[in-house]
Amino acid sequence: MTTQYVLELIGTYFFAISGALAVADIENDLFGASFTGFITAIGGGTLRDLILDSHPLVWIADSFVMYAVFAGVLTAILFFKWVIRLKKTLFFFDTLGIALFTVLGTEKALSFGAPEEVAVIMGIFSAVMGGVIRDTLANVTPVLLRKEIYASACMFGAIMYLLLAKFDVPRDMNLLISAASIAIVRTLAVRYKLYLPALGKWK
Amino acid sequence: MTTQYVLELIGTYFFAISGALAVADIENDLFGASFTGFITAIGGGTLRDLILDSHPLVWIADSFVMYAVFAGVLTAILFFKWVIRLKKTLFFFDTLGIALFTVLGTEKALSFGAPEEVAVIMGIFSAVMGGVIRDTLANVTPVLLRKEIYASACMFGAIMYLLLAKFDVPRDMNLLISAASIAIVRTLAVRYKLYLPALGKWK
Amino acid sequence: MTTQYVLELIGTYFFAISGALAVADIENDLFGASFTGFITAIGGGTLRDLILDSHPLVWIADSFVMYAVFAGVLTAILFFKWVIRLKKTLFFFDTLGIALFTVLGTEKALSFGAPEEVAVIMGIFSAVMGGVIRDTLANVTPVLLRKEIYASACMFGAIMYLLLAKFDVPRDMNLLISAASIAIVRTLAVRYKLYLPALGKWK
Repeated sequence: MTTQYVLELIGTYFFAISGALAVADIENDLFGASFTGFITAIGGGTLRDLILDSHPLVWIADSFVMYAVFAGVLTAILFFKWVIRLKKTLFFFDTLGIALFTVLGTEKALSFGAPEEVAVIMGIFSAVMGGVIRDTLANVTPVLLRKEIYASACMFGAIMYLLLAKFDVPRDMNLLISAASIAIVRTLAVRYKLYLPALGKWK
Repeated sequence: MTTQYVLELIGTYFFAISGALAVADIENDLFGASFTGFITAIGGGTLRDLILDSHPLVWIADSFVMYAVFAGVLTAILFFKWVIRLKKTLFFFDTLGIALFTVLGTEKALSFGAPEEVAVIMGIFSAVMGGVIRDTLANVTPVLLRKEIYASACMFGAIMYLLLAKFDVPRDMNLLISAASIAIVRTLAVRYKLYLPALGKWK
Repeated sequence: MTTQYVLELIGTYFFAISGALAVADIENDLFGASFTGFITAIGGGTLRDLILDSHPLVWIADSFVMYAVFAGVLTAILFFKWVIRLKKTLFFFDTLGIALFTVLGTEKALSFGAPEEVAVIMGIFSAVMGGVIRDTLANVTPVLLRKEIYASACMFGAIMYLLLAKFDVPRDMNLLISAASIAIVRTLAVRYKLYLPALGKWK
């Protein structure tokens, strides 16, 4: 049981919570919440694995991924009133999810022989595409396209992972440092209202 | 020519009709209607086959799938005025489509060695993802996320299929019984306004 | 370096520009613009290759595809004020993109042994699905579903490619003629306000 594996399950759990809660304000029944929780949790990784031609998909080969999704959805359902009031909770789970998935996705792409720039993109994809699908289903503009440090924090972390790997930082430590850097960048950016300039307003 | 094959063509035909009609109220030309009919009919199965790594995709290997789509789109175009007035007609075609695709998707996933809980999800995916894509394109909230027994009826039928298979019910009969159970559950649910509780309102 | 390869890079470049600009009116930062530019440029081809089971994907195997995307996004960013004012510019880039991708997609599907009607659909998919994803992300009704000659122009060009190939027109010339025919059909259709009849109003 590797660090990567444990982190992947934890990330899946976090994403399932954030997905189940995401459509809570539209008329959504328990099944719909489970569905969006599931899609959010496995969407990014599924897209990554399809693109890399990595079969069987993680959640098909390993039932524990599915259990992590179930646990996340159940957490969202059971602690709904508690969890939904705290907007920060949602933010917290989503941030942990993207942080973990970015570095895991980057690493997986490298292990499939992808060039480094592709690995960075695969890391970002793993992290954000589940949420993009979730937002698209719920008919809201994906957080990615709103003026917020989001996918750019993932890019930062993916590049940090590549750099630390070049300096021979041990893999488990690299995973944790790079993931933490994503969470920190995003949290600081939201706290201090930092953002990238809009297109056409950057100069 | 197996029962499964014939049912798949019929389900494809029904889905193509429902897809072509789905965007009838937005400015949509004949080509756009054909496109959404096509996407709705093959979307769920395509996603299922990509996830299961089942190549070549059914509609590439077998031209009859395409002909079933063409027939469905043509039906929608030729009998438009007649068909669109009857909201029940659309409901009817969509219900038959999801009923057939759920059991076929479940069975196919099993034949690819997927564990049972994954097979249930693949069955639901085959049935509902075409419609989800259709609704997303037409910019309406997917029926799946509205408070209605829809994907949950598919789950019911997929589990029934697994149970009946355990009791050695002959395959063709199992296919028909399980599909019928989905259509019945959904129809009863709509008729008697049954629905699952919304997230956060279930206790 | 074949004609096909050069055309593919040029088409990618055009699509990246159109994708980066597409969401310029919603709050979108430089990263978001890069993301939609990337998705628009590689979305159609990625879907085509996943469906055909053609691995590794073009943009993973060949870094020049990525550079073409970067160049397109950079063009959009640097010449934003100049480019965004000219609605015709966007139309121009998008038209060249769909023209090139249609014939390339059709040809690729044929080379994978797809039947001719599937090859036509794969050509259309390569051309329009990037834009469909782009429009879906930006929460606008895909151009495809609006009353405009768009995907139907692609279908015209794909069929022309098949016909010319039957008459043994040399491949490079065929590629250029068929792509040009798409650009011409679409441009004429927009100029003279030609469109296909809406569903239910065609007779």
